[in-house]
Amino acid sequence: MTVGDPHKSMAPKQLRLAARQGNLTEPTSGLAPGFVQCNLVIIPQNYASDFADFCRRNPKPCPLLAVSPEPGDFSLPELGADIDVRTDLPRYRRWENGVLTEEPDHLLDHWADDCVAFALGCSFSFEEALIADGLEIRNISEGVNVPMFRTNLPCISAGPFAGNVVVSMRPMKPKDAIRAIQICTRFPAVHGAPIHFGDPTQIGIESLQDPDFGEAVSIAEHEVPLFWACGVTPQVALENAKVPLAFTHAPGYMLVSDKPNTGLAIL
Amino acid sequence: MTVGDPHKSMAPKQLRLAARQGNLTEPTSGLAPGFVQCNLVIIPQNYASDFADFCRRNPKPCPLLAVSPEPGDFSLPELGADIDVRTDLPRYRRWENGVLTEEPDHLLDHWADDCVAFALGCSFSFEEALIADGLEIRNISEGVNVPMFRTNLPCISAGPFAGNVVVSMRPMKPKDAIRAIQICTRFPAVHGAPIHFGDPTQIGIESLQDPDFGEAVSIAEHEVPLFWACGVTPQVALENAKVPLAFTHAPGYMLVSDKPNTGLAIL
Repeated sequence: MTVGDPHKSMAPKQLRLAARQGNLTEPTSGLAPGFVQCNLVIIPQNYASDFADFCRRNPKPCPLLAVSPEPGDFSLPELGADIDVRTDLPRYRRWENGVLTEEPDHLLDHWADDCVAFALGCSFSFEEALIADGLEIRNISEGVNVPMFRTNLPCISAGPFAGNVVVSMRPMKPKDAIRAIQICTRFPAVHGAPIHFGDPTQIGIESLQDPDFGEAVSIAEHEVPLFWACGVTPQVALENAKVPLAFTHAPGYMLVSDKPNTGLAIL
Repeated sequence: MTVGDPHKSMAPKQLRLAARQGNLTEPTSGLAPGFVQCNLVIIPQNYASDFADFCRRNPKPCPLLAVSPEPGDFSLPELGADIDVRTDLPRYRRWENGVLTEEPDHLLDHWADDCVAFALGCSFSFEEALIADGLEIRNISEGVNVPMFRTNLPCISAGPFAGNVVVSMRPMKPKDAIRAIQICTRFPAVHGAPIHFGDPTQIGIESLQDPDFGEAVSIAEHEVPLFWACGVTPQVALENAKVPLAFTHAPGYMLVSDKPNTGLAIL
Protein backbone atom coordinates (compact mmCIF):
# COMPACT_ATOMS: atom_id res chain seq x y z
CA MET A 1 0.00 0.00 0.00
CA THR A 2 1.43 3.35 -1.00
CA VAL A 3 1.57 6.47 1.10
CA GLY A 4 -1.43 8.66 0.42
CA ASP A 5 -3.51 5.67 -0.69
CA PRO A 6 -7.01 7.15 -1.13
CA HIS A 7 -8.57 3.84 -0.05
CA LYS A 8 -7.23 4.44 3.47
CA SER A 9 -9.92 6.99 4.23
CA MET A 10 -12.83 5.33 2.41
CA ALA A 11 -16.00 4.12 4.07
CA PRO A 12 -16.95 0.44 3.60
CA LYS A 13 -19.49 1.22 0.89
CA GLN A 14 -16.98 3.32 -1.06
CA LEU A 15 -14.43 0.52 -0.83
CA ARG A 16 -16.92 -2.03 -2.13
CA LEU A 17 -17.76 0.29 -5.02
CA ALA A 18 -14.06 0.78 -5.78
CA ALA A 19 -13.59 -2.99 -5.89
CA ARG A 20 -16.68 -3.33 -8.07
CA GLN A 21 -15.24 -0.79 -10.53
CA GLY A 22 -11.85 -2.47 -10.56
CA ASN A 23 -10.17 0.39 -8.69
CA LEU A 24 -9.39 -1.52 -5.50
CA THR A 25 -6.96 -4.35 -6.17
CA GLU A 26 -5.00 -4.45 -2.92
CA PRO A 27 -5.62 -6.55 0.23
CA THR A 28 -8.22 -5.05 2.56
CA SER A 29 -6.18 -5.35 5.74
CA GLY A 30 -6.06 -1.97 7.46
CA LEU A 31 -8.82 -0.49 5.32
CA ALA A 32 -12.12 0.79 6.78
CA PRO A 33 -10.84 0.48 10.35
CA GLY A 34 -13.65 -0.21 12.81
CA PHE A 35 -15.73 -2.24 10.37
CA VAL A 36 -16.19 -6.00 10.18
CA GLN A 37 -14.42 -7.76 7.31
CA CYS A 38 -15.56 -11.23 6.31
CA ASN A 39 -14.37 -14.49 4.85
CA LEU A 40 -16.59 -15.44 1.91
CA VAL A 41 -17.64 -18.91 0.73
CA ILE A 42 -19.92 -19.41 -2.28
CA ILE A 43 -21.25 -22.89 -3.02
CA PRO A 44 -24.13 -24.45 -4.96
CA GLN A 45 -27.51 -24.64 -3.26
CA ASN A 46 -27.41 -28.45 -2.92
CA TYR A 47 -24.38 -28.10 -0.61
CA ALA A 48 -25.69 -25.13 1.35
CA SER A 49 -27.58 -26.98 4.06
CA ASP A 50 -24.61 -29.22 4.91
CA PHE A 51 -22.24 -26.27 4.94
CA ALA A 52 -24.55 -24.30 7.23
CA ASP A 53 -24.59 -27.32 9.56
CA PHE A 54 -20.80 -27.49 9.41
CA CYS A 55 -20.56 -23.84 10.49
CA ARG A 56 -23.07 -24.28 13.27
CA ARG A 57 -21.24 -27.33 14.62
CA ASN A 58 -17.85 -25.62 14.46
CA PRO A 59 -18.58 -22.04 15.47
CA LYS A 60 -15.04 -21.19 16.57
CA PRO A 61 -13.36 -21.73 13.18
CA CYS A 62 -16.56 -21.01 11.19
CA PRO A 63 -18.50 -18.15 12.82
CA LEU A 64 -21.33 -17.57 10.37
CA LEU A 65 -22.34 -13.90 10.10
CA ALA A 66 -24.64 -13.89 7.09
CA VAL A 67 -26.05 -16.05 4.25
CA SER A 68 -27.60 -15.12 0.92
CA PRO A 69 -31.31 -14.27 1.33
CA GLU A 70 -32.01 -16.97 -1.28
CA PRO A 71 -30.05 -18.93 -3.87
CA GLY A 72 -28.85 -16.74 -6.72
CA ASP A 73 -29.29 -13.53 -4.75
CA PHE A 74 -25.93 -11.78 -4.71
CA SER A 75 -26.83 -9.27 -1.98
CA LEU A 76 -26.07 -9.67 1.73
CA PRO A 77 -28.40 -7.14 3.36
CA GLU A 78 -27.47 -8.32 6.87
CA LEU A 79 -23.97 -6.96 6.33
CA GLY A 80 -24.44 -3.82 4.30
CA ALA A 81 -26.44 -1.80 1.81
CA ASP A 82 -26.14 -2.76 -1.86
CA ILE A 83 -23.51 -5.46 -1.33
CA ASP A 84 -22.82 -7.43 -4.49
CA VAL A 85 -20.84 -10.49 -3.48
CA ARG A 86 -19.90 -11.07 -7.14
CA THR A 87 -17.88 -7.88 -7.45
CA ASP A 88 -17.26 -6.21 -4.11
CA LEU A 89 -14.14 -8.10 -3.07
CA PRO A 90 -10.85 -7.18 -4.79
CA ARG A 91 -9.90 -10.80 -5.47
CA TYR A 92 -11.58 -14.21 -5.39
CA ARG A 93 -10.58 -17.84 -5.64
CA ARG A 94 -12.29 -20.42 -7.84
CA TRP A 95 -12.27 -24.02 -6.66
CA GLU A 96 -13.13 -26.99 -8.89
CA ASN A 97 -13.62 -30.32 -7.15
CA GLY A 98 -11.67 -28.92 -4.21
CA VAL A 99 -8.75 -27.73 -6.32
CA LEU A 100 -7.82 -24.06 -6.70
CA THR A 101 -8.01 -23.20 -10.38
CA GLU A 102 -8.08 -19.44 -10.68
CA GLU A 103 -7.98 -16.09 -8.85
CA PRO A 104 -10.51 -13.90 -10.64
CA ASP A 105 -11.11 -10.20 -9.88
CA HIS A 106 -14.87 -10.68 -9.98
CA LEU A 107 -17.44 -13.45 -10.36
CA LEU A 108 -19.73 -11.87 -12.95
CA ASP A 109 -18.90 -14.63 -15.43
CA HIS A 110 -19.17 -17.36 -12.79
CA TRP A 111 -22.29 -16.51 -10.82
CA ALA A 112 -25.23 -18.91 -11.23
CA ASP A 113 -28.81 -19.07 -10.06
CA ASP A 114 -27.98 -21.76 -7.50
CA CYS A 115 -25.08 -19.91 -5.84
CA VAL A 116 -25.35 -19.36 -2.08
CA ALA A 117 -22.90 -17.04 -0.30
CA PHE A 118 -21.76 -17.46 3.30
CA ALA A 119 -19.95 -14.64 5.15
CA LEU A 120 -17.83 -15.71 8.12
CA GLY A 121 -16.14 -13.64 10.83
CA CYS A 122 -12.45 -12.83 10.39
CA SER A 123 -9.56 -12.22 12.76
CA PHE A 124 -9.15 -8.58 11.68
CA SER A 125 -11.98 -7.69 14.06
CA PHE A 126 -10.40 -9.11 17.20
CA GLU A 127 -6.93 -7.91 16.20
CA GLU A 128 -8.35 -4.40 16.16
CA ALA A 129 -9.76 -4.88 19.67
CA LEU A 130 -6.40 -6.20 20.93
CA ILE A 131 -4.47 -3.30 19.41
CA ALA A 132 -6.96 -0.82 20.90
CA ASP A 133 -6.06 -2.32 24.28
CA GLY A 134 -2.36 -1.72 23.69
CA LEU A 135 -1.34 -5.26 22.80
CA GLU A 136 1.15 -5.94 20.04
CA ILE A 137 0.08 -8.21 17.17
CA ARG A 138 3.29 -9.65 15.82
CA ASN A 139 2.09 -10.31 12.24
CA ILE A 140 0.98 -6.67 12.04
CA SER A 141 4.14 -5.19 13.54
CA GLU A 142 6.23 -7.38 11.21
CA GLY A 143 4.00 -6.59 8.23
CA VAL A 144 3.27 -10.18 7.18
CA ASN A 145 0.25 -12.42 6.85
CA VAL A 146 -0.52 -14.18 10.12
CA PRO A 147 1.06 -17.66 10.28
CA MET A 148 -1.56 -20.42 10.06
CA PHE A 149 -1.19 -24.11 10.78
CA ARG A 150 -3.14 -27.31 10.19
CA THR A 151 -3.82 -29.03 13.54
CA ASN A 152 -4.79 -32.55 14.58
CA LEU A 153 -8.03 -31.23 16.14
CA PRO A 154 -10.95 -32.58 14.08
CA CYS A 155 -13.96 -30.46 13.18
CA ILE A 156 -17.39 -32.00 13.64
CA SER A 157 -18.30 -33.03 10.10
CA ALA A 158 -21.54 -32.29 8.26
CA GLY A 159 -22.31 -34.17 5.06
CA PRO A 160 -19.20 -33.98 2.86
CA PHE A 161 -17.68 -31.15 4.90
CA ALA A 162 -14.95 -32.37 7.24
CA GLY A 163 -11.36 -31.73 8.20
CA ASN A 164 -9.11 -30.56 10.98
CA VAL A 165 -9.18 -27.11 12.50
CA VAL A 166 -6.71 -24.62 11.06
CA VAL A 167 -5.33 -22.15 13.59
CA SER A 168 -3.65 -18.76 13.38
CA MET A 169 -0.80 -18.08 15.79
CA ARG A 170 0.18 -14.89 17.61
CA PRO A 171 2.96 -14.91 20.24
CA MET A 172 2.57 -12.89 23.44
CA LYS A 173 3.94 -12.60 26.94
CA PRO A 174 1.75 -14.55 29.41
CA LYS A 175 0.33 -11.36 30.93
CA ASP A 176 -0.74 -10.09 27.51
CA ALA A 177 -2.01 -13.55 26.60
CA ILE A 178 -4.37 -13.50 29.59
CA ARG A 179 -5.63 -10.07 28.51
CA ALA A 180 -6.05 -11.29 24.92
CA ILE A 181 -8.11 -14.25 26.12
CA GLN A 182 -10.36 -11.86 28.04
CA ILE A 183 -10.82 -9.48 25.12
CA CYS A 184 -11.38 -12.16 22.48
CA THR A 185 -13.96 -13.86 24.72
CA ARG A 186 -16.13 -10.81 24.03
CA PHE A 187 -16.04 -11.60 20.30
CA PRO A 188 -17.35 -15.13 19.67
CA ALA A 189 -18.46 -14.06 16.17
CA VAL A 190 -14.84 -13.61 15.13
CA HIS A 191 -13.31 -16.85 16.46
CA GLY A 192 -13.55 -15.91 20.16
CA ALA A 193 -10.86 -16.90 22.67
CA PRO A 194 -7.79 -18.88 21.62
CA ILE A 195 -8.24 -22.65 21.66
CA HIS A 196 -4.68 -23.49 22.74
CA PHE A 197 -1.45 -21.91 23.91
CA GLY A 198 2.07 -23.09 24.52
CA ASP A 199 3.44 -26.38 23.18
CA PRO A 200 2.42 -26.56 19.49
CA THR A 201 3.00 -30.32 19.26
CA GLN A 202 0.00 -30.83 21.54
CA ILE A 203 -2.27 -29.85 18.65
CA GLY A 204 -0.19 -31.50 15.96
CA ILE A 205 2.00 -28.61 14.85
CA GLU A 206 5.60 -29.62 14.21
CA SER A 207 7.32 -26.27 13.71
CA LEU A 208 6.13 -22.72 14.27
CA GLN A 209 8.65 -21.51 11.73
CA ASP A 210 7.01 -23.53 8.97
CA PRO A 211 3.38 -22.41 8.68
CA ASP A 212 0.97 -24.15 6.30
CA PHE A 213 -0.49 -20.77 5.28
CA GLY A 214 0.73 -17.19 5.75
CA GLU A 215 4.21 -16.37 6.95
CA ALA A 216 6.30 -17.14 10.03
CA VAL A 217 6.73 -14.43 12.69
CA SER A 218 9.44 -14.07 15.29
CA ILE A 219 8.80 -15.27 18.84
CA ALA A 220 10.71 -13.50 21.60
CA GLU A 221 12.06 -15.06 24.78
CA HIS A 222 9.37 -15.50 27.46
CA GLU A 223 6.60 -15.32 24.87
CA VAL A 224 4.15 -18.16 24.34
CA PRO A 225 2.32 -18.90 21.11
CA LEU A 226 -1.45 -18.44 21.24
CA PHE A 227 -3.57 -20.34 18.75
CA TRP A 228 -6.94 -19.11 17.48
CA ALA A 229 -9.38 -21.11 15.37
CA CYS A 230 -9.00 -19.70 11.86
CA GLY A 231 -11.26 -18.90 8.92
CA VAL A 232 -9.10 -21.01 6.62
CA THR A 233 -10.74 -24.05 8.26
CA PRO A 234 -13.89 -23.85 6.07
CA GLN A 235 -11.66 -23.56 3.01
CA VAL A 236 -9.97 -26.84 3.94
CA ALA A 237 -13.40 -28.41 4.50
CA LEU A 238 -14.38 -27.17 1.05
CA GLU A 239 -11.32 -28.86 -0.45
CA ASN A 240 -12.12 -32.08 1.38
CA ALA A 241 -15.75 -31.99 0.24
CA LYS A 242 -14.61 -31.71 -3.39
CA VAL A 243 -17.50 -29.40 -4.19
CA PRO A 244 -17.71 -29.36 -8.02
CA LEU A 245 -17.55 -25.57 -8.18
CA ALA A 246 -17.03 -23.11 -5.33
CA PHE A 247 -15.67 -19.63 -4.78
CA THR A 248 -14.03 -17.92 -1.83
CA HIS A 249 -12.30 -14.63 -1.14
CA ALA A 250 -8.57 -14.69 -1.86
CA PRO A 251 -6.63 -14.62 1.45
CA GLY A 252 -6.44 -11.04 2.71
CA TYR A 253 -8.94 -9.74 0.13
CA MET A 254 -12.04 -9.70 2.31
CA LEU A 255 -15.61 -8.53 2.09
CA VAL A 256 -15.75 -5.15 3.88
CA SER A 257 -19.12 -4.83 5.66
CA ASP A 258 -21.04 -1.88 7.11
CA LYS A 259 -21.16 -3.56 10.52
CA PRO A 260 -19.01 -1.98 13.26
CA ASN A 261 -16.54 -4.34 14.98
CA THR A 262 -17.72 -3.13 18.37
CA GLY A 263 -21.21 -4.38 17.49
CA LEU A 264 -19.85 -7.93 17.57
CA ALA A 265 -18.93 -7.66 21.26
CA ILE A 266 -21.27 -9.78 23.35
CA LEU A 267 -20.52 -7.61 26.39
CA MET B 1 -13.47 -33.69 58.66
CA THR B 2 -15.25 -36.85 59.69
CA VAL B 3 -17.97 -38.62 57.77
CA GLY B 4 -21.36 -37.44 58.89
CA ASP B 5 -19.93 -34.11 60.01
CA PRO B 6 -23.03 -32.08 60.96
CA HIS B 7 -21.30 -28.86 59.83
CA LYS B 8 -21.47 -30.10 56.24
CA SER B 9 -25.16 -29.27 55.95
CA MET B 10 -25.20 -26.06 57.98
CA ALA B 11 -26.17 -22.67 56.61
CA PRO B 12 -23.61 -19.82 56.96
CA LYS B 13 -25.36 -18.33 59.98
CA GLN B 14 -25.44 -21.71 61.77
CA LEU B 15 -21.74 -22.19 61.04
CA ARG B 16 -20.88 -18.79 62.47
CA LEU B 17 -22.94 -19.59 65.58
CA ALA B 18 -21.19 -22.93 65.93
CA ALA B 19 -17.81 -21.20 65.75
CA ARG B 20 -18.99 -18.61 68.25
CA GLN B 21 -19.99 -21.35 70.67
CA GLY B 22 -16.71 -23.20 70.22
CA ASN B 23 -18.34 -26.09 68.35
CA LEU B 24 -16.71 -25.47 64.98
CA THR B 25 -12.95 -25.90 65.19
CA GLU B 26 -12.16 -27.26 61.72
CA PRO B 27 -11.16 -25.37 58.54
CA THR B 28 -14.12 -23.95 56.64
CA SER B 29 -13.10 -25.27 53.22
CA GLY B 30 -16.02 -27.19 51.72
CA LEU B 31 -18.53 -25.88 54.26
CA ALA B 32 -21.58 -23.80 53.25
CA PRO B 33 -21.05 -24.47 49.55
CA GLY B 34 -22.33 -21.62 47.40
CA PHE B 35 -21.53 -18.90 49.93
CA VAL B 36 -18.68 -16.42 49.94
CA GLN B 37 -15.92 -17.05 52.46
CA CYS B 38 -13.58 -14.21 53.37
CA ASN B 39 -10.07 -13.41 54.47
CA LEU B 40 -10.16 -11.22 57.58
CA VAL B 41 -7.77 -8.48 58.64
CA ILE B 42 -8.27 -6.50 61.86
CA ILE B 43 -6.06 -3.47 62.53
CA PRO B 44 -6.16 -0.34 64.69
CA GLN B 45 -8.09 2.64 63.37
CA ASN B 46 -4.96 4.74 62.78
CA TYR B 47 -3.80 2.18 60.16
CA ALA B 48 -7.22 1.69 58.56
CA SER B 49 -7.07 4.46 55.98
CA ASP B 50 -3.68 3.34 54.66
CA PHE B 51 -4.79 -0.28 54.55
CA ALA B 52 -7.97 0.66 52.65
CA ASP B 53 -5.77 2.52 50.17
CA PHE B 54 -3.50 -0.50 49.88
CA CYS B 55 -6.49 -2.69 48.99
CA ARG B 56 -7.87 -0.21 46.50
CA ARG B 57 -4.49 0.09 44.78
CA ASN B 58 -3.99 -3.69 44.64
CA PRO B 59 -7.46 -5.05 43.95
CA LYS B 60 -6.31 -8.37 42.50
CA PRO B 61 -4.54 -9.65 45.63
CA CYS B 62 -6.67 -7.55 48.02
CA PRO B 63 -10.28 -7.47 46.82
CA LEU B 64 -12.06 -5.61 49.60
CA LEU B 65 -15.60 -6.89 50.21
CA ALA B 66 -16.55 -5.18 53.49
CA VAL B 67 -15.21 -2.97 56.29
CA SER B 68 -16.46 -2.43 59.85
CA PRO B 69 -19.27 0.17 59.92
CA GLU B 70 -17.15 2.11 62.43
CA PRO B 71 -14.14 1.46 64.65
CA GLY B 72 -14.94 -0.94 67.49
CA ASP B 73 -18.06 -2.27 65.77
CA PHE B 74 -17.62 -6.03 65.44
CA SER B 75 -20.49 -6.55 63.00
CA LEU B 76 -20.17 -6.71 59.21
CA PRO B 77 -23.74 -6.13 58.03
CA GLU B 78 -22.68 -6.02 54.37
CA LEU B 79 -21.77 -9.70 54.58
CA GLY B 80 -24.37 -11.23 56.87
CA ALA B 81 -26.85 -10.88 59.68
CA ASP B 82 -25.46 -10.78 63.21
CA ILE B 83 -21.86 -11.38 62.22
CA ASP B 84 -19.49 -11.03 65.16
CA VAL B 85 -15.98 -10.86 63.72
CA ARG B 86 -14.54 -11.51 67.21
CA THR B 87 -15.99 -15.00 67.48
CA ASP B 88 -17.43 -16.27 64.21
CA LEU B 89 -14.25 -17.70 62.71
CA PRO B 90 -12.96 -21.02 64.07
CA ARG B 91 -9.39 -19.79 64.42
CA TYR B 92 -7.51 -16.47 64.33
CA ARG B 93 -3.95 -15.25 64.24
CA ARG B 94 -2.55 -12.53 66.45
CA TRP B 95 0.30 -10.42 65.06
CA GLU B 96 2.51 -8.18 67.16
CA ASN B 97 4.78 -5.76 65.26
CA GLY B 98 4.36 -8.01 62.22
CA VAL B 99 5.25 -11.21 64.07
CA LEU B 100 2.81 -14.07 64.58
CA THR B 101 2.43 -14.62 68.29
CA GLU B 102 -0.67 -16.71 68.84
CA GLU B 103 -3.57 -18.58 67.20
CA PRO B 104 -6.57 -17.86 69.43
CA ASP B 105 -10.03 -19.40 68.96
CA HIS B 106 -11.72 -16.04 69.48
CA LEU B 107 -10.84 -12.39 69.98
CA LEU B 108 -13.11 -11.55 72.91
CA ASP B 109 -10.09 -10.81 75.09
CA HIS B 110 -8.31 -8.88 72.35
CA TRP B 111 -10.97 -6.68 70.80
CA ALA B 112 -10.60 -2.94 71.40
CA ASP B 113 -12.61 0.15 70.61
CA ASP B 114 -10.24 1.15 67.82
CA CYS B 115 -10.34 -2.19 65.96
CA VAL B 116 -11.37 -2.05 62.28
CA ALA B 117 -12.12 -5.28 60.40
CA PHE B 118 -11.56 -5.76 56.66
CA ALA B 119 -13.08 -8.72 54.82
CA LEU B 120 -11.38 -9.68 51.56
CA GLY B 121 -12.45 -12.08 48.82
CA CYS B 122 -11.00 -15.59 48.85
CA SER B 123 -10.18 -18.18 46.20
CA PHE B 124 -12.82 -20.63 47.46
CA SER B 125 -15.41 -18.66 45.48
CA PHE B 126 -13.71 -18.98 42.11
CA GLU B 127 -12.65 -22.57 42.77
CA GLU B 128 -16.33 -23.39 43.18
CA ALA B 129 -17.13 -21.73 39.84
CA LEU B 130 -14.33 -23.67 38.13
CA ILE B 131 -15.45 -26.99 39.58
CA ALA B 132 -19.05 -26.26 38.55
CA ASP B 133 -17.73 -25.95 35.00
CA GLY B 134 -16.10 -29.38 35.18
CA LEU B 135 -12.51 -28.24 35.73
CA GLU B 136 -10.23 -30.07 38.14
CA ILE B 137 -8.63 -28.09 40.97
CA ARG B 138 -5.49 -30.00 41.83
CA ASN B 139 -5.20 -28.86 45.46
CA ILE B 140 -8.78 -30.00 46.04
CA SER B 141 -8.42 -33.36 44.28
CA GLU B 142 -5.19 -33.98 46.18
CA GLY B 143 -6.72 -32.78 49.46
CA VAL B 144 -4.06 -30.23 50.35
CA ASN B 145 -3.84 -26.49 50.91
CA VAL B 146 -3.22 -24.66 47.65
CA PRO B 147 0.50 -23.98 47.07
CA MET B 148 1.34 -20.29 47.43
CA PHE B 149 4.50 -18.45 46.44
CA ARG B 150 6.11 -15.08 47.05
CA THR B 151 6.76 -13.35 43.71
CA ASN B 152 8.98 -10.49 42.57
CA LEU B 153 5.91 -8.48 41.49
CA PRO B 154 5.64 -5.43 43.77
CA CYS B 155 2.33 -4.21 45.16
CA ILE B 156 1.61 -0.51 45.00
CA SER B 157 2.37 0.61 48.53
CA ALA B 158 0.17 2.75 50.79
CA GLY B 159 1.66 4.26 53.94
CA PRO B 160 3.50 1.45 55.75
CA PHE B 161 1.78 -1.27 53.74
CA ALA B 162 4.03 -2.68 51.03
CA GLY B 163 5.41 -5.93 49.72
CA ASN B 164 5.37 -8.27 46.76
CA VAL B 165 2.30 -10.08 45.48
CA VAL B 166 1.80 -13.61 46.79
CA VAL B 167 0.23 -15.99 44.27
CA SER B 168 -1.58 -19.30 44.50
CA MET B 169 -0.85 -21.89 41.81
CA ARG B 170 -3.14 -24.38 40.10
CA PRO B 171 -1.89 -26.49 37.17
CA MET B 172 -4.14 -27.10 34.16
CA LYS B 173 -4.02 -28.18 30.54
CA PRO B 174 -3.94 -25.13 28.23
CA LYS B 175 -7.53 -25.67 27.08
CA ASP B 176 -8.75 -25.72 30.69
CA ALA B 177 -6.51 -22.77 31.52
CA ILE B 178 -8.23 -20.68 28.83
CA ARG B 179 -11.61 -21.65 30.27
CA ALA B 180 -10.42 -20.85 33.80
CA ILE B 181 -9.27 -17.39 32.67
CA GLN B 182 -12.72 -16.78 31.18
CA ILE B 183 -14.58 -17.94 34.28
CA CYS B 184 -12.38 -16.11 36.78
CA THR B 185 -12.70 -12.90 34.76
CA ARG B 186 -16.33 -12.89 35.90
CA PHE B 187 -15.19 -12.74 39.54
CA PRO B 188 -12.95 -9.70 40.09
CA ALA B 189 -14.03 -9.61 43.75
CA VAL B 190 -12.25 -12.91 44.39
CA HIS B 191 -8.90 -12.25 42.70
CA GLY B 192 -10.24 -12.36 39.11
CA ALA B 193 -8.24 -13.85 36.25
CA PRO B 194 -4.77 -15.32 36.81
CA ILE B 195 -1.92 -12.82 36.58
CA HIS B 196 0.63 -15.21 35.04
CA PHE B 197 0.97 -18.68 33.60
CA GLY B 198 3.86 -20.87 32.50
CA ASP B 199 7.47 -20.22 33.45
CA PRO B 200 7.49 -19.51 37.21
CA THR B 201 10.93 -17.87 37.15
CA GLN B 202 9.41 -14.97 35.20
CA ILE B 203 7.69 -13.84 38.40
CA GLY B 204 10.53 -14.77 40.73
CA ILE B 205 9.50 -18.29 41.76
CA GLU B 206 12.40 -20.71 41.92
CA SER B 207 10.65 -24.05 42.41
CA LEU B 208 7.01 -25.03 42.21
CA GLN B 209 7.73 -27.96 44.51
CA ASP B 210 8.81 -25.63 47.31
CA PRO B 211 5.89 -23.30 48.08
CA ASP B 212 6.25 -20.48 50.61
CA PHE B 213 2.78 -21.26 52.02
CA GLY B 214 0.47 -24.26 51.64
CA GLU B 215 1.60 -27.51 50.09
CA ALA B 216 3.02 -28.60 46.75
CA VAL B 217 0.72 -30.33 44.23
CA SER B 218 1.62 -32.61 41.34
CA ILE B 219 1.83 -31.17 37.84
CA ALA B 220 1.12 -33.60 34.98
CA GLU B 221 2.77 -33.61 31.57
CA HIS B 222 1.32 -30.98 29.22
CA GLU B 223 -0.06 -28.98 32.11
CA VAL B 224 0.96 -25.39 32.74
CA PRO B 225 0.94 -23.67 36.12
CA LEU B 226 -1.55 -20.81 36.46
CA PHE B 227 -0.88 -18.13 39.06
CA TRP B 228 -3.61 -16.15 40.78
CA ALA B 229 -3.08 -13.13 43.05
CA CYS B 230 -3.60 -14.46 46.56
CA GLY B 231 -5.18 -13.26 49.80
CA VAL B 232 -1.96 -13.95 51.68
CA THR B 233 -0.58 -10.79 50.06
CA PRO B 234 -2.23 -8.44 52.60
CA GLN B 235 -0.88 -10.62 55.40
CA VAL B 236 2.64 -10.09 54.07
CA ALA B 237 1.95 -6.35 53.82
CA LEU B 238 0.80 -6.46 57.42
CA GLU B 239 4.06 -8.11 58.46
CA ASN B 240 6.06 -5.51 56.53
CA ALA B 241 4.09 -2.65 58.10
CA LYS B 242 4.94 -3.97 61.58
CA VAL B 243 1.52 -2.93 62.84
CA PRO B 244 1.80 -3.01 66.68
CA LEU B 245 -1.22 -5.30 67.05
CA ALA B 246 -3.26 -6.95 64.32
CA PHE B 247 -5.44 -10.02 63.85
CA THR B 248 -6.27 -12.14 60.85
CA HIS B 249 -8.08 -15.39 60.16
CA ALA B 250 -5.85 -18.46 60.45
CA PRO B 251 -5.21 -19.91 56.95
CA GLY B 252 -8.21 -22.00 55.90
CA TYR B 253 -10.37 -20.84 58.80
CA MET B 254 -12.40 -18.20 57.01
CA LEU B 255 -15.33 -15.94 57.72
CA VAL B 256 -18.39 -17.62 56.18
CA SER B 257 -20.74 -14.95 54.84
CA ASP B 258 -24.41 -14.95 53.80
CA LYS B 259 -23.49 -13.69 50.32
CA PRO B 260 -23.91 -16.20 47.46
CA ASN B 261 -20.82 -16.77 45.32
CA THR B 262 -22.88 -16.28 42.18
CA GLY B 263 -23.69 -12.77 43.40
CA LEU B 264 -20.02 -11.85 42.92
CA ALA B 265 -20.16 -12.53 39.18
CA ILE B 266 -19.96 -9.27 37.24
CA LEU B 267 -21.69 -10.93 34.29
